Amino acid sequence: MARSQARSLNLDRLLDEPVDWRYKSFPAGPSVPIRSVRARGWNVLSGEFMLPVMVLKDSALSHNIELMAKYCRDHDFLLAPHGKTAMSPQLLARQLEAGSWAVTAATMSQVRVWRAFGVDRVILANELVEPASVRWVASELRDDPEFDFYCLVDSVAEVRLLEAALAGTALDRPLQLLLEVGPMGGRTGCRTPEQALEVARAVASSGRLALAGVEAFEGVITAKSLAGTIDATDAFLDDMRAVVVKLDQAGHFAKARRVIVTAGGSAFPDRVVARLGQPWDLSRPVALVLRSGCYLTHDAIHYQQLSPFGGRIPDTGPLQEALEVWGVVLSLPEPGLALIGFGKRDVPHDLELPVPGFVKSGAEKTRPIGEGVAIFAVNDQHAYMRLGPREQLRVGDMVGCGISHPCTAFDKWRLIPVVDDGYNVIDAVLTYF
Amino acid sequence: MARSQARSLNLDRLLDEPVDWRYKSFPAGPSVPIRSVRARGWNVLSGEFMLPVMVLKDSALSHNIELMAKYCRDHDFLLAPHGKTAMSPQLLARQLEAGSWAVTAATMSQVRVWRAFGVDRVILANELVEPASVRWVASELRDDPEFDFYCLVDSVAEVRLLEAALAGTALDRPLQLLLEVGPMGGRTGCRTPEQALEVARAVASSGRLALAGVEAFEGVITAKSLAGTIDATDAFLDDMRAVVVKLDQAGHFAKARRVIVTAGGSAFPDRVVARLGQPWDLSRPVALVLRSGCYLTHDAIHYQQLSPFGGRIPDTGPLQEALEVWGVVLSLPEPGLALIGFGKRDVPHDLELPVPGFVKSGAEKTRPIGEGVAIFAVNDQHAYMRLGPREQLRVGDMVGCGISHPCTAFDKWRLIPVVDDGYNVIDAVLTYF
Repeated sequence: MARSQARSLNLDRLLDEPVDWRYKSFPAGPSVPIRSVRARGWNVLSGEFMLPVMVLKDSALSHNIELMAKYCRDHDFLLAPHGKTAMSPQLLARQLEAGSWAVTAATMSQVRVWRAFGVDRVILANELVEPASVRWVASELRDDPEFDFYCLVDSVAEVRLLEAALAGTALDRPLQLLLEVGPMGGRTGCRTPEQALEVARAVASSGRLALAGVEAFEGVITAKSLAGTIDATDAFLDDMRAVVVKLDQAGHFAKARRVIVTAGGSAFPDRVVARLGQPWDLSRPVALVLRSGCYLTHDAIHYQQLSPFGGRIPDTGPLQEALEVWGVVLSLPEPGLALIGFGKRDVPHDLELPVPGFVKSGAEKTRPIGEGVAIFAVNDQHAYMRLGPREQLRVGDMVGCGISHPCTAFDKWRLIPVVDDGYNVIDAVLTYF
Repeated sequence: MARSQARSLNLDRLLDEPVDWRYKSFPAGPSVPIRSVRARGWNVLSGEFMLPVMVLKDSALSHNIELMAKYCRDHDFLLAPHGKTAMSPQLLARQLEAGSWAVTAATMSQVRVWRAFGVDRVILANELVEPASVRWVASELRDDPEFDFYCLVDSVAEVRLLEAALAGTALDRPLQLLLEVGPMGGRTGCRTPEQALEVARAVASSGRLALAGVEAFEGVITAKSLAGTIDATDAFLDDMRAVVVKLDQAGHFAKARRVIVTAGGSAFPDRVVARLGQPWDLSRPVALVLRSGCYLTHDAIHYQQLSPFGGRIPDTGPLQEALEVWGVVLSLPEPGLALIGFGKRDVPHDLELPVPGFVKSGAEKTRPIGEGVAIFAVNDQHAYMRLGPREQLRVGDMVGCGISHPCTAFDKWRLIPVVDDGYNVIDAVLTYF
């Protein structure tokens, strides 16, 4: 199934895309199509690129994709990676080739992107309340019998909106819904079993809708400590499990062949596996689905601290950082201060700022940056870097940084070079935000 | 001059761009080229768009462009609007048509975008230290005798890098540099007159370089109060003025026909006019250049509080908000809490969060939102909105918000509908970040 999806992704039109002035950082000169980027022989640190540049490390990508695929296989979970992280058909193709069961989307515009490439199973991990979006997905479902689509529901009001919008379509199969549960103080989702049952009853009363399972996103839960967050996450997942059982006992999965139970970002997939992976005793088979997105590239701080791989799950080893941003030292205007040529337009700044790791000075070899060097502020196009007492940089030096939060890194780049371990450009991937 | 630039912007290839799945929020269905968007007859609030959507209000755009153009004319300043704010050739064309003298860029990739549209005068308001970028701009200057390019310099190290990179080119005219001064604790720029003179001497000793003027960005200065910021800004601009005089007295503008003196973001253009607009007594004529960017669209908080127009400059009246983001109420999961369907991917979140202003419920007319409603957090694709006791929203309602910080609004949208005062789509502008 996954492999047939992979083959159906038509990437040809992307590979014909000319690499030109529309794509920041790529070298000037005659444009080449993306399919010829490797043959062009660029190296991002050899001085041809106009910094800043964000690179994707191919070896880390492959490592992470294979690690997560194996983890899911080993625990009988399906994987519907959250495509919103990278919004890159070329990267999704690699995830599908590695066995992913579906793609997850956050908005209907994202669903449109995936449909443009023929992805035939999509979970919209969000409520669907706009009539035009309902009508569009109904037309996609009607035109393509293979298209398997799920969206979330957490209110009777949404059920009524869905019914009303579907009434104007010729869709001949029910729209599949996942009932969303959410923690108190959290994001979307029913807060109590009673609310969940009320919504499920409204779904059951509609001939146009079918309850296909239960969904949650545990990643909105935070406590004062990691241990506290894990405890709260476990308790929430146990509550979710109880809701699934209640809905099944009340017959609300009557129209479903199997019950989909899905949760899991990239911070606590291990807790999802631990609490939802235990045996179920429902009226129908259960399909367990993880929806991690950021595992694809991992990062230098946020997921580095939270990811279970190599820590809470010691046997897998850790994920590897696949994203790196390089900027140039523009100025050293005061002792101990360097201004680097990237900013809010280039790097994530919503969780933590980039973490300097490497320096390349002219033709010299790349070396680790001195201890204590840190970026402490960013403007739109500049970063402020405090130098330690032992780090001497020169104007024009290139500084390589890890990033925190892949989701706000990808959306700042429309075309990203994929590099081998020597920073040779072997591919380039487009994003669609 | 300005008008001839406007005519030279070739927007044809942009207007042929098909509006399709690559551009979030635009309606599904057969794609139309941008030039036919008006004829298509869309309205962003009629339910065809897939929310969120960010709109540009045409009347506010025109108002702001004309206001700033007149302000500059009235005070004998030239305008080189900072193109980094919107990175939109279509919007720059309107600014050039209104008399702008040049465009300002923050990076060499941005310069490439403007050159792709034939813009013939560019200020790179940044240091230039990468050899490949120097070589590229040298080739542009060599191939196009009309191309008038300036970049900043703030160190002898940069002078050496520029010289070395230019040595390998066939450029037959000197590269024009603006000496940057910056405040202590600020960003790039020489901190003292002594540093400035040292850099100017290095420039003067090079046959490949010419000092064309002095640049500063006063917008990095902040004090505890607005009055304190203004005092510090004035003092800094007076220091800048003294540096210009010193450089002139030392003969460092010997290769220049006129001395360019340029500063000014969108927060304190009035202080720049007040301190740099006073008569000069230099060896050559002075060309005063403002570089404001955010005036183009203004905003709901940051520039609303800082902009002089209508306040410190009462006779102009204020700028108008030209950007508005609309999202849909996805869920009302707890009393007083609404989840709106936009997030970090769609709205600025670096200074302040969006400000809810309007509600449209189904076919009802748009109305002002209740007092006390506020967005207090954003995730990647969701906003958390606290409802006041008197505001009743329904799932599916559309909420319209002002934004804070145009620079981090535009970069989240590749194609933005331009609407009339009734939200009818009359155009759509592409951005290139």
